[in-house]
This record gives sequence, C-alpha cells and structure tokens, in this order.
Amino acid sequence: MKAQRVELLVCPMATPADTEGLQKLADLGKIKTETLVALVGKTEGTGAHDDWGRVWADVALREWTARFLGISPNEVAKQVIFVLSGGCPGVITPHIAAVTREWVDVPDDTAGEDKRLVVGRAGSDPMPPEEVGRMGQIRKVAEATHHAMADAGLTDPEDVHLVMVKVPGLTTASIKDAESRGKTVVSHDLTFGPEGAGAYANDAAALGVAMALGEVPEASLSDDVVRRNWDLYSNVAMTSSGGEKRHGEVVVFGNSVESRSELRIGHSVTKDFIDAEGVRNALRSAGLTFNGLPSETDLSRLVHVFAKSVIPGSDRIRGQRITLLDDTDAYQIGKALGGMLVASVTGRTTNYVSGGERNSHQGPPGGNIVAAVVRADG
Amino acid sequence: MKAQRVELLVCPMATPADTEGLQKLADLGKIKTETLVALVGKTEGTGAHDDWGRVWADVALREWTARFLGISPNEVAKQVIFVLSGGCPGVITPHIAAVTREWVDVPDDTAGEDKRLVVGRAGSDPMPPEEVGRMGQIRKVAEATHHAMADAGLTDPEDVHLVMVKVPGLTTASIKDAESRGKTVVSHDLTFGPEGAGAYANDAAALGVAMALGEVPEASLSDDVVRRNWDLYSNVAMTSSGGEKRHGEVVVFGNSVESRSELRIGHSVTKDFIDAEGVRNALRSAGLTFNGLPSETDLSRLVHVFAKSVIPGSDRIRGQRITLLDDTDAYQIGKALGGMLVASVTGRTTNYVSGGERNSHQGPPGGNIVAAVVRADG
Amino acid sequence: MKAQRVELLVCPMATPADTEGLQKLADLGKIKTETLVALVGKTEGTGAHDDWGRVWADVALREWTARFLGISPNEVAKQVIFVLSGGCPGVITPHIAAVTREWVDVPDDTAGEDKRLVVGRAGSDPMPPEEVGRMGQIRKVAEATHHAMADAGLTDPEDVHLVMVKVPGLTTASIKDAESRGKTVVSHDLTFGPEGAGAYANDAAALGVAMALGEVPEASLSDDVVRRNWDLYSNVAMTSSGGEKRHGEVVVFGNSVESRSELRIGHSVTKDFIDAEGVRNALRSAGLTFNGLPSETDLSRLVHVFAKSVIPGSDRIRGQRITLLDDTDAYQIGKALGGMLVASVTGRTTNYVSGGERNSHQGPPGGNIVAAVVRADG
Amino acid sequence: MKAQRVELLVCPMATPADTEGLQKLADLGKIKTETLVALVGKTEGTGAHDDWGRVWADVALREWTARFLGISPNEVAKQVIFVLSGGCPGVITPHIAAVTREWVDVPDDTAGEDKRLVVGRAGSDPMPPEEVGRMGQIRKVAEATHHAMADAGLTDPEDVHLVMVKVPGLTTASIKDAESRGKTVVSHDLTFGPEGAGAYANDAAALGVAMALGEVPEASLSDDVVRRNWDLYSNVAMTSSGGEKRHGEVVVFGNSVESRSELRIGHSVTKDFIDAEGVRNALRSAGLTFNGLPSETDLSRLVHVFAKSVIPGSDRIRGQRITLLDDTDAYQIGKALGGMLVASVTGRTTNYVSGGERNSHQGPPGGNIVAAVVRADG
Repeated sequence: MKAQRVELLVCPMATPADTEGLQKLADLGKIKTETLVALVGKTEGTGAHDDWGRVWADVALREWTARFLGISPNEVAKQVIFVLSGGCPGVITPHIAAVTREWVDVPDDTAGEDKRLVVGRAGSDPMPPEEVGRMGQIRKVAEATHHAMADAGLTDPEDVHLVMVKVPGLTTASIKDAESRGKTVVSHDLTFGPEGAGAYANDAAALGVAMALGEVPEASLSDDVVRRNWDLYSNVAMTSSGGEKRHGEVVVFGNSVESRSELRIGHSVTKDFIDAEGVRNALRSAGLTFNGLPSETDLSRLVHVFAKSVIPGSDRIRGQRITLLDDTDAYQIGKALGGMLVASVTGRTTNYVSGGERNSHQGPPGGNIVAAVVRADG
Repeated sequence: MKAQRVELLVCPMATPADTEGLQKLADLGKIKTETLVALVGKTEGTGAHDDWGRVWADVALREWTARFLGISPNEVAKQVIFVLSGGCPGVITPHIAAVTREWVDVPDDTAGEDKRLVVGRAGSDPMPPEEVGRMGQIRKVAEATHHAMADAGLTDPEDVHLVMVKVPGLTTASIKDAESRGKTVVSHDLTFGPEGAGAYANDAAALGVAMALGEVPEASLSDDVVRRNWDLYSNVAMTSSGGEKRHGEVVVFGNSVESRSELRIGHSVTKDFIDAEGVRNALRSAGLTFNGLPSETDLSRLVHVFAKSVIPGSDRIRGQRITLLDDTDAYQIGKALGGMLVASVTGRTTNYVSGGERNSHQGPPGGNIVAAVVRADG
Repeated sequence: MKAQRVELLVCPMATPADTEGLQKLADLGKIKTETLVALVGKTEGTGAHDDWGRVWADVALREWTARFLGISPNEVAKQVIFVLSGGCPGVITPHIAAVTREWVDVPDDTAGEDKRLVVGRAGSDPMPPEEVGRMGQIRKVAEATHHAMADAGLTDPEDVHLVMVKVPGLTTASIKDAESRGKTVVSHDLTFGPEGAGAYANDAAALGVAMALGEVPEASLSDDVVRRNWDLYSNVAMTSSGGEKRHGEVVVFGNSVESRSELRIGHSVTKDFIDAEGVRNALRSAGLTFNGLPSETDLSRLVHVFAKSVIPGSDRIRGQRITLLDDTDAYQIGKALGGMLVASVTGRTTNYVSGGERNSHQGPPGGNIVAAVVRADG
Repeated sequence: MKAQRVELLVCPMATPADTEGLQKLADLGKIKTETLVALVGKTEGTGAHDDWGRVWADVALREWTARFLGISPNEVAKQVIFVLSGGCPGVITPHIAAVTREWVDVPDDTAGEDKRLVVGRAGSDPMPPEEVGRMGQIRKVAEATHHAMADAGLTDPEDVHLVMVKVPGLTTASIKDAESRGKTVVSHDLTFGPEGAGAYANDAAALGVAMALGEVPEASLSDDVVRRNWDLYSNVAMTSSGGEKRHGEVVVFGNSVESRSELRIGHSVTKDFIDAEGVRNALRSAGLTFNGLPSETDLSRLVHVFAKSVIPGSDRIRGQRITLLDDTDAYQIGKALGGMLVASVTGRTTNYVSGGERNSHQGPPGGNIVAAVVRADG
C-alpha cells in the first residue's frame, strides 16, 4: 500500500522574483520533481489592482518551476498548483511555502495511530469572465474540490481543514471580451471593494468549496446569494483571484489515518476581528495542547499558519463603532490587521494571511478562518 | 490636607464633532467645571496632513468646553489640556477621555495604603516654527513636564507612568513665516514620514520628557541627536503634534500615596512590534495580577489603555524581513497594527493608540510604550 | 414686470470652515438675505468617504447662513441650496460661489436684447436609502428639475445650460436602516468606485435631469440602466451626493431674454479626457469669441467654470492605453486631471471641478460636461 | 567624415515586461545591435517605493536587450543606457522609447544646413549610498555629463536641450551598509517626499548637470544647497533615481550641424504649474511654427515630448491657494497633472512625464522643463 508523506517548507523571499530558498531546498533534495505539488505564498507589494509584485512573482516562480521540472512554463500548472496571494502590508513576511507529497510503501494493514496531513489538488475547467462571481464559478470550484479531495484520499468532509482556491477574476480586457460576446459580468469594479469583481470571484470560490463539503446545500445557491446572503459560508475555504488566470486551482489539506506525514493540520474560526483566542484555537485544533498561551516549545512545533482577514460587514466590534468599513485604505489595513493578530500569537511573521475584502463567504459573518499545521510530537 | 481624586471617563464619538458623551457626563455631574483637567482622545479620519477630522474635533470640543466652562474658546487652553491624536484606522474606536481631578479633604496624617492615580498638567512657552524638532522645543517641553509633575504632586520620576504631550508642528504657512525671518526649519516635509516635521516635533517632545525625568542626560542632547541617536528615549512619553498649535501642552499621569483615586496607572514597553506580552505587562504594572491571559474579571477592572505604535526602524522582526518601512500606506498601517495588538489583548477597541511614524524617541528602538489605568480592587 | 438679475460671486476658502469671504460680500451688500439662492463650491480634503472636510464645510456654511438669514441651521435648506463637492486635489482652489438673484422692476414689454443668466432651485421629496441609485431617485430629481426650471422662468430645455444636483448617497447606517425594513440597496460599496453607492446616486441624479429635459425618454429608464447603458446621459447635469443628505437639491442655470443679469452661461462637452478644445468651446458657448486661444481680455470676462471630470470607461485615449481605470488612487487622480484641463485653459485655479468616478451618465461616454459663466460685454 | 543619424522610436507597452514593440522594431531592422544607445521610458505602477512595476520592467528590458545584443544582462549597462521612470498615473501611456544612433559617411566639408539631433551617453563612477544627494553625486554626474556631451559631439552647452540622468537612490539595505561603515546618509526617508532620499538623489543629479553646463557655478555648490537653495537649477536636466542602481547613467540630447538626423530637439520651461503655453513653446523651440494652437499637421511632425512635473514649493498658483503640497497622494497627483498638461497640448498620451516631487533643481522654482523632438520638414 502507498501512503502519503506530506511536507510544508516555508521560504522567505527577498524580492518578488526570489527563488533562492526554493533552489536551496531543491539542492538539498527536500523538493523533488516528483514530490512538488503546490507553491502557496504571499507576495510583496500593495495587493491592489495596479500592484505588479504578485504578477512578477508568479512569472518568476513559474519559470523556476519549469526549469526544475524540465518542462515549459505553460505546462507547470498541470503539475504544480500555484496559490499566490498579493500584498504583505505590515507584519507579513513575503514567503513561499512549498508543499511536497511523497508516496511511501507501507504494509497494507497498518493505518496510522492518529490522523496526519494529506494533500490533494485539482484544476478546474476554464471559467470565462461571465462566470466569475456566479454559479458557473461556484460549480466548477465545487467539482474541482471533489477532485482534489479524491486526490488527497479524503472522503469525509470533517477531515478537510483547509481548501485553498485560486480562481480567475476580471480585468478591463476580460470584461470587454465578455460584453463583446453579449454577456454581462458580475461587476465593473476591478478592486476587492464590497462590490468588486475580486471580492465576487473569491466569494464564489468559497461557496464552491462550501457546496462541495456540504457546508451549504446546493439548493440554496444562486447568482443572487453571492455577497448578499452571509449565512452561507465555508469554514475551511481560503480563496483568492487574479485577472491573469483562466482556470481555477484547488488544493485540499486534511488529515487521514493513511498518511505517514509528520505533520497534522487543524483549523478554527475567530469569533470577531480582534479574537486572538480564535487563532490559538486553530493551534489547538492542530494538536498543540496548552492553557492560556502557547509556550515556546509549543510554538517550535508550529510549522505554518494560514489565515483569512476579512473585514467585518458591521461597523461594530463588541459594541463599539470602528471606522474600518469607511477607511480609504481599508483593503490594506484589514489585511495588515489579520497579519498582526496571527503574528502576535505565533511570535513570527512568516504567516500566510490574505484578506482585506469587506465581508466574505470565507468564514461566518465577522469571523475569520485560521488553519494551522504542526509537527506531531513523539 | 487636600488629596486628589482622579477619574478617567471614556466616551466613544459618533462623529468628529460629537460631544454628546461629554454632555451626558456633565449632566450627570461626573464632569464639573472645576474638575475637568484634560481631554485626551483619538479622532477619526486618516490622520494624514490633509485630514480635517482632527481639526474639526478640536474646534467642536473646544467650543463645547468653552460653553461648559462659561468662557471663550480662546481661554479654554488655560484651563483644560487637549491631546487629540488624529487617525483611527482599523480597530481604534474614535473616542474622547475626560480626565477629572477633584480635591478632597483628608486627615493630614493618612497617606493612602497604596499609590493611586494623580494627574498634573502644564502649558509651555510658545514654540516658534524654527524651534520645532530642535533643542528649543526639547527644553520647553522639559520645563513644562516639571511644572506638570509639580501640579500632580509628583517628585520621583519613578512614579511617573505616562506623559502626554501635544506640541506645535510645522505648516506651509509657519515655514514661510520662519524663513521670512531668516530662520531655518528642521524639515520641509510636513508629514510624519521619517524626515517629516511631524515626526521631528513628536520626537523633540519625547526627548523633552526624557530630559525632565532624567531618562536622558541633558548633556547628551542637541539638535543633531533628534531622530538620529535612537539610544536616547523616554519610556513614558507619548507625544503628538499639530500645525495649529503655538504652545506645548503636557499632562503627567503617575501614582502617589497621597491620592484618594480609585484608579492606578502602570506602564510597560513592548520588546518588538508584535509583542502582545508587552501589552499584558502594562496591565500587570497597573495592578492586574494574572498568569498567561487576563480573565474577563481582570479586564472588567481595566479603565483605559494608552499605547504608541511606532514603526520599527529595522526591516526585520525576530529575524524575518517585513516590508512595513517601504509600505506606501505605512503611516496608517503602522498605527492600525498597534490598535490591533492592544485590542486583541484588552478585548475592546476604545484604546488610545497613536503612532505610525518610523522610529521614535518614544520608547526604545523597536519597542513601544503601553500605559494602562485600572480600577483598584477592594 | 419683475426680472431676474443673477450674480455669481466666487470666494476662495482658507479652511473648510472659512466664511470670511462670504461675510465680506454680505458686509458689502453684495449678498442680501433676500437674494442668496445657492452656495456652490469645492471643499478641501480627499473627497473620499473618510474625508471630513466637506462635512465640516457644510456645517460651518450652514451655520453662517443661518446667522445671516436669522433662522435656524435646520431651516437653511428651505431657502438656500447647498452644492458642496468634496475634494480639491491638485490645482483646484477650495472655494464657495454664492449665487444671488435679485428681482428688478422692468417695463413689461422690454425683453432683453439677448439672453442672460437666470437661476432657479428646488428641493425634492425625501429619498430613502432604498431609492438611492434607482428609479425613485431618478423620478424625484426629474420632478425637482421641473420645479427648478419653473422657478428660473425657463420652459425650453435648450435654454438650460447647467443643472447642479446634490442627492443623498448611502452610509453604513442608512444601509442598515433600509435592510432592517426589508429593503435592498443598490450597492454595499460606499465609495465612488465603479459599483459604488456614490456613483449610483450621482448617476441616478443625472438621469433624472436627462429625463426632465427630454434628453432621455422616460420609457428607456429603469433601475437596470443605471451605470449600465451609457448611451443614456445628460449634457448639462452635474451631480454629487453625500451620505448626510435626506432630500435632493437642484439648481438650474440657463439663459432667458427676460433676465437683466450681466452674466451669460454656456456649455459644451469634451470629446475625450484630454480635450482642452472642449473647455474652450464652453467659453465660446457662453459668449467669448476667439480663434485658437482666448486672450487675457477674454479671460477677464470669464466669471466661473463648472466642469465634470469623469474617468472614461475605456482604457484607451485616442488609441493608446492608459492605466487610469486601474490606478489605486484613480478617484483622486481623475478629479485632479479635470482640474488641470480646465485651469490650463482658464489660467486660474478657482474652477468648480467634480468627478473621479469611472464612467457616468453625466455627459456622453468618454466626454465631460463643461459650463462657463461670462460677463456679457458692452 | 562620420555623422550621426539619430532616431527615436516610441513603443507603447502592454505590461511592465512587454518587449514586443522592441522586438518588432528589431525584426524590421530599425533597431540594430550597433545602433541602440538608450532605452528611455515610463513604466506602469504607482511609482511609489513599493511599486515593483519599474523593477520588473528593468529586468525584462535588460534581458531582452542582452538577448538582442548577444551579451549577458550584467553587460547591458555598458552598451545601452536605461532611463526608466516609474509611475504612469492618469493619462501617461506606459512606453519605451528606443534611441538609435547610426554613423553615416558624409563628405568632410558638408555640415548640415541646420542643426539636427545628436545623442551621447556615459556612465558614471559608482556612487556609494553616502554620496547620494550630496556633492559626491553632483560631481560624478557633472563628469559623466561632460563625457556624454563629448560622445554626442557637442561642445556648446547652448546646443544641449535635454540631459536625462538616472542615479542611485537609497534603500533600507544601502542605508544600513553606509551606516555600518560609519557614514551618514542624506535622509532616512526613502520616498520622493520633500525630504526623501529619492528627491535628494534626483536633485543632486540635476545640479550635476547644471554644473557641467555652467548653469550653476561650481563654487556655489555644496551639500547644503541641495533642496535648499532653489535659485540653483538646470533648465535641461531630467533626473530620476532607483535604489537598485550603483552607477549614474547620463544621456545627452542636443542639436548639431554635423548631424544627419531627420529629427530636431528643443526645450522650454513652463512659467508655472498650469502653463500650457510653456509646453507649446517647447514644440516651437524644436521647430514647429504656429500661432496659438498647433495644427494637426504640426502635431503629426511631433515625435516625442519629455517633461518634468515637479510640484511647486509654494501653495499659490497665480495668487490662489492650492492644496497640492498637503495632498496625501501628491506624488501621484503631481505627476499625473504634468501628464495632462502635456497630453492636452500634444493630443496624445505617449509622453514621457516624470515628477511628483515637491520642488526641484530641475527647472526654476514653480516651472517645469519640457523638451520636444520633432521631425524636421522638407
């Protein structure tokens, strides 16, 4: 019997095009051509629509991966899933995490004693601009999520702790394309603002995950609920979007008794925007056991944290007014604040934190999803 | 013998000109014409140079206070110190805290069992634009700090836990004025950027406090050390500046056995930008006793937190690179991050958090000052 | 017979609350309690949603007007229309223009030799948040436009050269109000972005004017065409919106043979975003006659210019790509660019220029409306 | 005798890494390996310190040029000067202009009838961070300017109409490097703000040009005059800076009777920030003859415009206050306004416009340099 052994290797990046960390891992044999399944990271820059940091990082990482795999850059997407989230304001260190999966031979009858990390990935069918932020995108993400779960060897949605999705957003050009074919698009706003195409794309992707995992019944879904009915959401979907994409890409992380990984994943949801305990709960869910605050030893077992930092739709936190919804730079500030919430708990800045949008189907109203990967002890 | 009884009353504000909370306190007799000594708050808006929220709040609060005291707005500054810090990005609720001081009769020989909150204030001599950010401003703030300590009845610098200072900054008009008189000014940059006049003004004020409290020997001070020698700093100075000011204003908070206040103040310094434990240490310094995390009961005794959120001068936190120094909106983001650090510990958003400047003489390099006021138990 | 004599008096403002210029005009008798019909101006600040400059200006001007008229600030709106547009980036001098209308006795049979400036104004019925950006707002603006034309003594739409409208926008609070009553709102985006509530409000107001003037047939209007069908537009509507408004306010400017004003108004439309000739055509329309460039003498007769600066919906100007649609600060930049286009023609910075939104029903696709008021010669 | 034949070929770019236009020119033989002397352009993005558009463009263009020349990217700087100015806000089309110089045989005694375009370039000695914005940088730019003039065959400064310079700025890393060696740097502010390192670098470069051309006597130059004595300036220097540079690069454009180019260059200076006539004067200086406005035929002969858009140091334009000095986004807005001023005259958006800094030694106080290249008629 073949069992997975999954690793997560975090490389800080010195510039958007810095592939030194990856190359070093490759040189050390920690990343092999047959084991690399995903690159997940945060790229520096503003994360705004006119930020070229993420685009450049995507190009540079794709070229590096192509050279590493000995294939052409256009072929990379078929073998390695890229999830790059733009914008590292504040205390989020630009970094790339390589996800590797090795298949090891194990005796047929020896399931692991406890559940350990598995990973699966899948690409979706192409998503034309008229589907962005709508049922077309939802359904294609749901389908790809099913494929990625199967690839991970997961069948029970309860074992899924994180689904990262990258989907196409809209651009001036793709809107023009859609409308020239007589189609409408969900929004003419290219930002991640409350009615922005980026926000719609992210949220359709989240609902696609929720549909796949049964968090939301398919019957309750329609174009009209996206960014309107906040009672529909996923607790494990982290999604982002980019204008340059044509397909969706899905990476599922979960735990399985059939895994031989040293790692385990867990997740939780913050109860509101300032809830540090929600972050600690994610560490606990992944297997760290502590009262109050995690110790240095606990934190030394922490491998990585993935968190969303969606701005709440309400202008109140615990009864008091905040101005975040009205702040001019709210997209940047909201993302930065999530970075601080996580860093102040983990004691490190190399956390994956994406967000800044106002409200989302990623997590319940006001709350945010946090997933943690820890090295199992013993 | 007369002893002080100091109260701190926090009123969230719905708009920059909202004085309803103050009026309600006045109607309830909690603020009296003879007890109001200071208004300290955070005003909404960007906090940037073209933000009119703080200016409007200043005008509205000054008019309210003038009506309340039955004097003209121009006379208000002689009786009540205003410290308004602009910019509430993220999770900082716009609010005003009224500081009241009542003098109560106590038997001559009964010093309190423990030290409790006292407050003192003083205005400085006028500071012309050519003194902003330089020794002239440093010396005048030091002198006013001495006066404010005397007004508080404090003699030992160890008993001083917070010195809030508001000083004149520069404006296009005041620079023109200075240069027309053949004087130079410290900077032509009107922002709070690393070479901005706002940052120089804040830092000269901080060094003035440090000089007054003996944190920095006078001999080590000169125009040249401001924003250059970061080994010189105060651990209790929180300073801000505004172009419309002509004088400095100083409020000193400390503890004294001669106080009959129900409140106690303490302070601490964070070790770096993501150090939540530093915030908890400020609560402990003020008298909350807890291991790990404060309980709800502990937090119910917390009256208010004052914190700086100065951006570190280094691009590294705990060994990893961050981009905060280069972020376009760093001034906003830096301030917002401090708000999150404090709110995630206090569980509330009505905290006074000012900052955003890169590096400061307010606190040691990389660290930030946090002061907390708690209601003493028993 | 009574005939109008309309004047337009432009006062630069030194701060958002500066009413000195108006007071001086009042002291000189140029503004009288019975002649003041409107205050139209540009207020400093960012013009963004968290800019308090405009709100403060509104409060200060309303208080001044109330004192001037001897009524309460709440009553001011019934007598004087306020159209304050926020944001003076670049080369737009913050200013307020007082519009006065005197009724002079003239012999019954002496119509003027040529048409001169008349003005009329009207308030609308209240517009609840659910009507913002939709037919409700369109119809109420159309109705108010008819009333304002009647007030101006205008019947032929051809004689109308400028209709300034200020309507309610949305706020976090008003959205909550609408949704608590089971209503939907047009957008949850509070900005003037492409799907922002501010843009929808402005555009519904423009279509209301277009409907009133017959520029667009009523039958072609519906909720669905707002910010979607750009073939529907007005050539004379300049609209803005603010969250604090509850009613719409309309001021109509036109020319009439029955006027005894010294002023005349004209308007034109730019053919694209860089079309300085469009600005010059507005001057010509108002009665300046020049080839090529206006002379100093021509410009000395120019009293005021009102211009929109809507960002084109296309990313091409005269065949070349621009990035304006994607620029992070496009709202500010777009408005600033209009200010430059006008100032570079008029040779002065005290022009009323509002805009920054992407695309609008104010003017044809890509083009912007410019109206000019000149002092008639002879 | 060998004579120069210089061409200027403007390629709009679709992304920061778009080299298609250059490749097409190479394929057509319009750019040859032995004729390419400089690439001068505007790159998209914000132009701010965290904008990666310019860096990416630099990398991509350098790689293309290396492939084209058959050398390594590190060798490119020795053969081709790159002047890339970041930030295309508003109506500035991202583009690259290839400057080619061919040496053609001409009879020894046949000087041209009129002066035509020549070009020369030179690199400077390396400029360590401690020299940035100071005499070290000034002198090295002056020296390189002399070399570039010699390379162009120009001896009379009157024949020089444009000197483009790119010099090293400062970065967090280079400041650290300098200070670790016991050196000071001119500023800790990495922006192009009034005390920003970027502004100091640009201005030292401008004074270097002024020194070389005799516009400013060397004796009047010192570290202290940079960004302080605005009476010292160049009328032909356009400078920019980037943290990644180690050397200065200079390209001189002028006219010479020994040239066989079809092109001619001229320049002028605007009298203030809204002076469109200054732009027209640059067209006239280059050889277009028109009264009032240039005709379509005139403009068809215009090849390219290079303009600065430095924000005036005063808050007044023609007697009226503007808020540009205080605008939060002034750097972007100021640059964008220059783009509009030029585009509204040239009727096209592919103009090179750099700027946004407050005040500069590039041009006289309040005015900006404009250079124009036209195709000579007949």
